[in-house]
Amino acid sequence: MANPAPLLSFPPRRFSQAAWDDVAQKLSAHFGNRYQTGEALRRQHGHTTTWLENQPPDAVVFATSTEDVVFTVNVCRENRVPIVPFGTGTSLEGHVNAPEGGVCIDLSRKAAIKAINVDDLDCVVEPGVTRKQLNDHLRDVGLFFPLDPGADASLGGMAATRASGTNAVRYGTMKDVVLALEAVMPDGSVIRTGTRARKSSAGYDLTRLLIGSEGTLGIITELTLKLFGVPEAVRGVAATFPTLEAASNAVISTIHYGLPAARIELLDPLTVRAVNAYSDTSFAEAPLLLAEFHGSETAVEEQASIFAALVDDAGGEATDTATTPEERTKLWQARHDAYWAGLQLRPGARGISTDTCVPISRLAESVLQAQAEAERLGFIAPIVGHVGDGNFHVLLLVDPESSEEVDKAETYLSWLNSMAIAAGGTCTGEHGIGQGKQRYLRQELGDAVDVMATIKQAIDPYNLFNPGKVISS
Amino acid sequence: MANPAPLLSFPPRRFSQAAWDDVAQKLSAHFGNRYQTGEALRRQHGHTTTWLENQPPDAVVFATSTEDVVFTVNVCRENRVPIVPFGTGTSLEGHVNAPEGGVCIDLSRKAAIKAINVDDLDCVVEPGVTRKQLNDHLRDVGLFFPLDPGADASLGGMAATRASGTNAVRYGTMKDVVLALEAVMPDGSVIRTGTRARKSSAGYDLTRLLIGSEGTLGIITELTLKLFGVPEAVRGVAATFPTLEAASNAVISTIHYGLPAARIELLDPLTVRAVNAYSDTSFAEAPLLLAEFHGSETAVEEQASIFAALVDDAGGEATDTATTPEERTKLWQARHDAYWAGLQLRPGARGISTDTCVPISRLAESVLQAQAEAERLGFIAPIVGHVGDGNFHVLLLVDPESSEEVDKAETYLSWLNSMAIAAGGTCTGEHGIGQGKQRYLRQELGDAVDVMATIKQAIDPYNLFNPGKVISS
Repeated sequence: MANPAPLLSFPPRRFSQAAWDDVAQKLSAHFGNRYQTGEALRRQHGHTTTWLENQPPDAVVFATSTEDVVFTVNVCRENRVPIVPFGTGTSLEGHVNAPEGGVCIDLSRKAAIKAINVDDLDCVVEPGVTRKQLNDHLRDVGLFFPLDPGADASLGGMAATRASGTNAVRYGTMKDVVLALEAVMPDGSVIRTGTRARKSSAGYDLTRLLIGSEGTLGIITELTLKLFGVPEAVRGVAATFPTLEAASNAVISTIHYGLPAARIELLDPLTVRAVNAYSDTSFAEAPLLLAEFHGSETAVEEQASIFAALVDDAGGEATDTATTPEERTKLWQARHDAYWAGLQLRPGARGISTDTCVPISRLAESVLQAQAEAERLGFIAPIVGHVGDGNFHVLLLVDPESSEEVDKAETYLSWLNSMAIAAGGTCTGEHGIGQGKQRYLRQELGDAVDVMATIKQAIDPYNLFNPGKVISS
Repeated sequence: MANPAPLLSFPPRRFSQAAWDDVAQKLSAHFGNRYQTGEALRRQHGHTTTWLENQPPDAVVFATSTEDVVFTVNVCRENRVPIVPFGTGTSLEGHVNAPEGGVCIDLSRKAAIKAINVDDLDCVVEPGVTRKQLNDHLRDVGLFFPLDPGADASLGGMAATRASGTNAVRYGTMKDVVLALEAVMPDGSVIRTGTRARKSSAGYDLTRLLIGSEGTLGIITELTLKLFGVPEAVRGVAATFPTLEAASNAVISTIHYGLPAARIELLDPLTVRAVNAYSDTSFAEAPLLLAEFHGSETAVEEQASIFAALVDDAGGEATDTATTPEERTKLWQARHDAYWAGLQLRPGARGISTDTCVPISRLAESVLQAQAEAERLGFIAPIVGHVGDGNFHVLLLVDPESSEEVDKAETYLSWLNSMAIAAGGTCTGEHGIGQGKQRYLRQELGDAVDVMATIKQAIDPYNLFNPGKVISS
């Protein structure tokens, strides 16, 4: 499929053929058949999920150890060749693209689960472990890792983009569940940013600095993560509403009441229609909230009934749902498949998922305006949201061959991000800045971006770690 | 009172008399009688709480606006004069000392509560607001700010040191409750690190980088904080145990059960004796746990009864306690006064509070070893702990005039911090590195300290922001 023009233009690659030959020779000797240059494989290691251009690396190495990463970083640094880390490639913002070429370090084979500390509710994993692999491994010990971006992403990639998902309202984002990281820095040093202590005031918070730095400051080679006990009981509630505003008001009441919901998800009527068709569900085609409560039998029963009362107050209708694990899996799989379901509303179109997050008091008006503006511009644009956090995604369905549509999509993105920022919110709740949102980062945080650039310059003076992401100079 | 030799030696101040004269003239003209140089006031603005030497600044300015801070930073930078921010001076690690002289910026009068956003459960405050002032202000709106280090510290200072306290096991530390900061950077720029969105993936996490940076990277001039609904019901449980090990086992079971305790505090028998005498309580002189549960009436009743059963399983005895707000206030005031109560065990001694935090599975052995080693060295050393997090404080009572005792105290600190680090923990759970713990920071995090130094060098190239703290070059 042809790609539209990228949102940003990049300088040409900076390294010479001689430099590349040296890198290729050394990596090939070190990695053997774990060094690959075939075009199909290289393209798979570029961006493949949205309308951003696919920009493949010149070679891919499959690292299986921290030493492999250090070796690659040192060889590349000596030759001023860029390095792009790769987990599962499920980023939506071009994080795995190689706009200046260079070497992709694929970490999917560095995927050992090194320790599960049941008494301490923590674990030590390598970056290639995916969230589902970790949860499969934990099944027998009564613990789980709660964060669930739609994709079965790698934990290293989730940390690098500060990912979250539906459970963030209760369990937080990657910044909240990572206790410590091991990372390879641009100078080839290997650092450990923290310990297994649950809290610490020991120096600058390098753990949080690396989380969300999108591979531009360090390459994560190990993670120490918090785990949680599998709740004794789980209760789900679905609620339909006459209007999006009524649904948003129910969310505000829930948060304000202090009800400890594990997740509260909003689906607009268009998404409900798409999900019903794609996942064989039968929700009413109206604004829908899916809420879930975790705790003791007594606690979740009380919470579900309070939630039902709040739904009723807001003019909605609540029904219990999904009490068996199988029903729950089906329900949440349907929710996670909303992205793929939405794409079916316009076969052949590319999806662009927005990611604004606003203070909860501004949620209703923000979602309504987002819907109205998409309609005004003629887009089919289903909306879903992790609304307990004020985070919602508009899925714009765009024909990438139509420059008029692409222009309108860019106009919409600019309008939407500006609206969220003006409402005291952010252009990205969980997807990251990557290639596409750098202009909005500046709009949102102003001169703070200069401080980010100062840090980047100091830690990666040759701009070799994932260049063209977060900040481009 | 005479002070012992400081743990570290510092270089002489680096600025000339001419430089100081320029600073003094300009600050005096700008601040009028908010510029002060009296010795008593300057000494009050140095370290006063532990055995570390009092190192006063050359002058104190009372800032009431961000512009005051920018003005001071610019004047001082032009003259290469150090700047030390000050909140309430309750730091235990020498954070407010001015080892190289310079200007103290007292922010206690920059203390406006700028916004309370009830629907969004957040607020915007200036750094001089203390946690009690904020909670007094919130009393009528049904919200509260949960973090409670013993002292009524300023919120700016709490952020700067990544403080926490008894409620951290449920509500987190300052890194978890700050949504965004405004800060003045060493180049005089004013940055805003985030928005009011509950989560964000927008660029490097400068909020978390500044939290815990102890005034060495930026001066916090405004905070956007999460707030929480006052729980419908609060239930406290006190439990006594035959041994510290039994008490620790009850904590491990509680955490492992996933019981959402708001706080779980441990007092060793010596602390109980001191608290009984100081605060007129009548606890049995045995290892004591104080736990508190927040939630609905049904939920806290269930949680308290599960906790009582876990206490029973561990061989302890639980009694309900403190159900009225007045009783609760008295109980937790007694807990917070444990530091002052402990000092009374040896009148005239100075207290040194350790701050190690270990994985919960290592808690029992760590506390027992800490107690045994203190006894072996002949110290009176009561122990309290925020044990839900694995964080415990040994209060060493030391005669600062006895060089033998001071040496033994340093030996003990080194032994204790090394033990905690070897157990996978940290030398500081909540007090910070400051002047006294820099050697342990290196021991704990190794080459990561070099990355911290790189960041410090890039952001504050003249080392003017709180020099001699966190990292000394």
